Amino acid sequence: MKLTEEQKKDIKNQQSQKFTTKRVVAPDLENILFEALPILDHGFIRVIDYMGDDTSIVQAARVSYGKGTKKVNTDAGLIKYLMRHWHSTPFEMCEIKYHIKLPIFIARQWIRHRTANVNEYSARYSILDKEFYLPSKENLAAQSTNNRQGRGDVISGEQAKEVLDLLKGDAERTYNNYETMLNERYDGSIIDEKKSGLARELARMNLTLNTYTQWYWKTDLLNLMNFLRLRADHHAQYEIRAYADIMLDTLKRWVPITYEAFMDYRVGGTEVSSKGKEVIKKLIKGENISIDETDLSKREWNELMIAFNLKDKLI
Amino acid sequence: MKLTEEQKKDIKNQQSQKFTTKRVVAPDLENILFEALPILDHGFIRVIDYMGDDTSIVQAARVSYGKGTKKVNTDAGLIKYLMRHWHSTPFEMCEIKYHIKLPIFIARQWIRHRTANVNEYSARYSILDKEFYLPSKENLAAQSTNNRQGRGDVISGEQAKEVLDLLKGDAERTYNNYETMLNERYDGSIIDEKKSGLARELARMNLTLNTYTQWYWKTDLLNLMNFLRLRADHHAQYEIRAYADIMLDTLKRWVPITYEAFMDYRVGGTEVSSKGKEVIKKLIKGENISIDETDLSKREWNELMIAFNLKDKLI
Amino acid sequence: MKLTEEQKKDIKNQQSQKFTTKRVVAPDLENILFEALPILDHGFIRVIDYMGDDTSIVQAARVSYGKGTKKVNTDAGLIKYLMRHWHSTPFEMCEIKYHIKLPIFIARQWIRHRTANVNEYSARYSILDKEFYLPSKENLAAQSTNNRQGRGDVISGEQAKEVLDLLKGDAERTYNNYETMLNERYDGSIIDEKKSGLARELARMNLTLNTYTQWYWKTDLLNLMNFLRLRADHHAQYEIRAYADIMLDTLKRWVPITYEAFMDYRVGGTEVSSKGKEVIKKLIKGENISIDETDLSKREWNELMIAFNLKDKLI
Amino acid sequence: MKLTEEQKKDIKNQQSQKFTTKRVVAPDLENILFEALPILDHGFIRVIDYMGDDTSIVQAARVSYGKGTKKVNTDAGLIKYLMRHWHSTPFEMCEIKYHIKLPIFIARQWIRHRTANVNEYSARYSILDKEFYLPSKENLAAQSTNNRQGRGDVISGEQAKEVLDLLKGDAERTYNNYETMLNERYDGSIIDEKKSGLARELARMNLTLNTYTQWYWKTDLLNLMNFLRLRADHHAQYEIRAYADIMLDTLKRWVPITYEAFMDYRVGGTEVSSKGKEVIKKLIKGENISIDETDLSKREWNELMIAFNLKDKLI
Repeated sequence: MKLTEEQKKDIKNQQSQKFTTKRVVAPDLENILFEALPILDHGFIRVIDYMGDDTSIVQAARVSYGKGTKKVNTDAGLIKYLMRHWHSTPFEMCEIKYHIKLPIFIARQWIRHRTANVNEYSARYSILDKEFYLPSKENLAAQSTNNRQGRGDVISGEQAKEVLDLLKGDAERTYNNYETMLNERYDGSIIDEKKSGLARELARMNLTLNTYTQWYWKTDLLNLMNFLRLRADHHAQYEIRAYADIMLDTLKRWVPITYEAFMDYRVGGTEVSSKGKEVIKKLIKGENISIDETDLSKREWNELMIAFNLKDKLI
Repeated sequence: MKLTEEQKKDIKNQQSQKFTTKRVVAPDLENILFEALPILDHGFIRVIDYMGDDTSIVQAARVSYGKGTKKVNTDAGLIKYLMRHWHSTPFEMCEIKYHIKLPIFIARQWIRHRTANVNEYSARYSILDKEFYLPSKENLAAQSTNNRQGRGDVISGEQAKEVLDLLKGDAERTYNNYETMLNERYDGSIIDEKKSGLARELARMNLTLNTYTQWYWKTDLLNLMNFLRLRADHHAQYEIRAYADIMLDTLKRWVPITYEAFMDYRVGGTEVSSKGKEVIKKLIKGENISIDETDLSKREWNELMIAFNLKDKLI
Repeated sequence: MKLTEEQKKDIKNQQSQKFTTKRVVAPDLENILFEALPILDHGFIRVIDYMGDDTSIVQAARVSYGKGTKKVNTDAGLIKYLMRHWHSTPFEMCEIKYHIKLPIFIARQWIRHRTANVNEYSARYSILDKEFYLPSKENLAAQSTNNRQGRGDVISGEQAKEVLDLLKGDAERTYNNYETMLNERYDGSIIDEKKSGLARELARMNLTLNTYTQWYWKTDLLNLMNFLRLRADHHAQYEIRAYADIMLDTLKRWVPITYEAFMDYRVGGTEVSSKGKEVIKKLIKGENISIDETDLSKREWNELMIAFNLKDKLI
Repeated sequence: MKLTEEQKKDIKNQQSQKFTTKRVVAPDLENILFEALPILDHGFIRVIDYMGDDTSIVQAARVSYGKGTKKVNTDAGLIKYLMRHWHSTPFEMCEIKYHIKLPIFIARQWIRHRTANVNEYSARYSILDKEFYLPSKENLAAQSTNNRQGRGDVISGEQAKEVLDLLKGDAERTYNNYETMLNERYDGSIIDEKKSGLARELARMNLTLNTYTQWYWKTDLLNLMNFLRLRADHHAQYEIRAYADIMLDTLKRWVPITYEAFMDYRVGGTEVSSKGKEVIKKLIKGENISIDETDLSKREWNELMIAFNLKDKLI
């Protein structure tokens, strides 16, 4: 991640702002407000604004005249109860806004979360930065052989070098040709005064999907947790997980009580189907049950055994 | 509107909060934060929290590293442009949260705006306040004779008294019977120690639709304007318009530049259909056009003439 | 539920429609299309239209050129996989539309599900039917003593009679006064030719919350299941569960494979928190664990023991 | 657009389906159901399913027991009224589902319409087709000189050839390298048996933004019209307009009465701001007004004059 001097100054200016407000404040989050937290090779996340804190959840759940807090203890108990029983509306009462720089192919995954507000940098209007994502060596994974949408072993040696050369070479060539077609360089200088450039809305189609874009993304706390539950999970693609992991940290700074409940009930929790419950009941009774006595598929059986750490029962 | 001493104290406590923040602040809105602004006979609106101001719209539209403002002038121009061309996403970047007390029949209209977050006081869990909406005399309107969903002249004299007596009598009787069925009074005291009360989730069905309820309601700036465009309009029922009018004032305090653009392009503006445009074009040319030369219905014709203040052309 | 002769004829006419289509068809659902399935004392649900069937889910998940089905077996496996892993978008590809008659206080619970489309009968525009919900004797429950939003034992004898008399008397009186204020009866006849009636949008506020209203309600399959998961649950209020139970039956007729997966993974399933998993792991190992050795609250402990049918461990 | 033999057969099979249904049917839309309507060089739109027709709008608006139609005339009047007064919910009662093949950079614009359901072909799971969008010569536009997000004159001659060569060359090279990195060709054949291929979720990042993707896209009639109002407009990028134009035709086949009202009130209509109304009023009175006597910006003034065809007043 490289910021221009002007960008650094803009960020500094915001960080030095000091206003007085009657609204609730999340001090740990204020500490990193506006800061560009680096992700992948050129990406970042910046927390731009937020509304509410843990007490706002309690306040809304109680429809109270004052602030939420009775005692911290009682409040934590209520937040845990709401999380456990899937109450959704009190968590919607907090809101957060990020400025994010990310590769386009990750932006395309991200945008599938529809209950959020987005303003993306417009490549119809402006010229994109010359920045592409290139995986680091340890993330250069082969296609998984048993999971059609997963990763297998790391590719190394000569083949790794070859892949990185191809990615780098193609990204640079297509970007250079993008400038050629635009007849304009990123800094605004014209290449050939006698030519007119191709419309930006057309030239952009030549860029590769690892080109970085950026957007403002705003969502409420409930939908942020829905996002993180899916995207901080080990099934998620590494590149989006890298963002989700940093966002988990901002969650902790913002609403620490909610964060604890989220980790316990959602991230660390498991769902057990009706048929799966029958298996667990028998195991608790000490019965020796095999998959043949159940209606579970092999895949379901193994998922269940892994969830409860019964590795000797994997088949 | 009557607040208990405890409620007044809760509000006072919040109003005396003073925190430091790096976030943008809307000073005029801070001035009325938490205050219960009275509406109708027992209702109110309180602004509980907000996120962003006019500069946040500009900042998101530009996906900028610093705050939105270049010069106030330029910013106002951009906001007006965005409003005129129905750009929606930058206005979604600001958020506001209200605490509202309102009659149930109005709450039922209100909730039809789905893009908002709501926590309502639960009558499954708690006992509702003994407060009902009774229209003031000047709002006691007869059914309109030419608009099936509108109001006509004010009802007065003996009939007005009769209507108010019926409304008051029925609200009080049903509320008293609600307490009888609950075997419990609003203050929590038990009526007959030897009886058990009917479940709250059942007893509430005896209340009339003018009983007051309350909720926390949160929405973004775009959807707030969508709400106000419909509900501050003269076609809206008076009782919901009373709320919308106060909310218009909070809009002005929060995002004054956006408010100006909203009043010009939305509230004060008009839509002209393709066929309507042909009529206006001819009128500008000085041609004397009658409805028979158009494809407009009588209703459309009159709506068009009223929009452009051509009252002599009404038919 | 009483339908007028005209309503019965309207329904009959629709049921005798016979069109040819290339779209997929759900034969079991066609069998009950338009039929008014009775619920509570005056309510009903009618399936008015639908789009897609089980194969549509598979078709969308595969983004296929033909219809979804490869083999019924493979399709069922895919649908179960999608359900188990919380894939949401393929289930959004099916849509259903109901016509529902229900008491207003239930309509107010129902509408909190925002991702649906609604057209409600307008009491600003029309006069509501003279129909109120009165619980049957076995549903006349006392307030629960240990769950602030639940029901306890059934109220019986003299008190039951008293409650029903109050509910019936208040509903009838307020409805009669509604007519008096309107100066018009439900059949459209004027009461006193010399008076004008109160505006409908005002008079309706005198009605009690057990008055029946009706609406068209349309949603996609994913959000229908979200609704049913909450509202067919034993925590839901009996009166809304009565609707959800009938809708479960329409779900089974419409998408039988999805219905099976839904019952297994959602309705019959359980969530186990991170801390809860530790307890279950120890129980499987045959360890004798008590609540003191865990971080669970008493409530959480009991919920966990009930989920796995360990009633002797309840505390 | 080239379909494989298998795809053609899949489509044929669906088109020859013939089911009996009680649901309303839109015969003109049935005629083109499943057909791949070609767009741009390799794209298409296929209507896969639909629910409702013009009468469904009327039926929902009236919350009726029978089908919507009273008389075609009355129904058309009601639909026009609903459209003119921005009633939204009755139009949400109809639903349509498309299968669409489109370039990725257009898919990124498209997806910003959030109130729709989407299943996209997964490049984590599968290999994308070797198809890229290359503009035809008449669409090879230069950047506009006065509108930062628009097109100017067509680029021709040598420069046009150069642009097309760059686009074609880069798309082919990056696709070939995509196959090399995957160590697999589109047809599934392995390139080098001794190597493992890069994970699909990574390799895809090398593709250019004009690569075609495909998805199932479903929305209700209201949101379809919102989409078309923006995307069939002359401000929209040509490439997305090409899709919107074909969809306008499917709208006409599906709900012809609604289509007429949409063209009159939305597509052909104009909005006039409060300040703009003052100008039009004066023009109708025959007054000779200049921009200096108004609060309009030059841009607003010109937009207003163009809307009413007053080209001699442009400044």
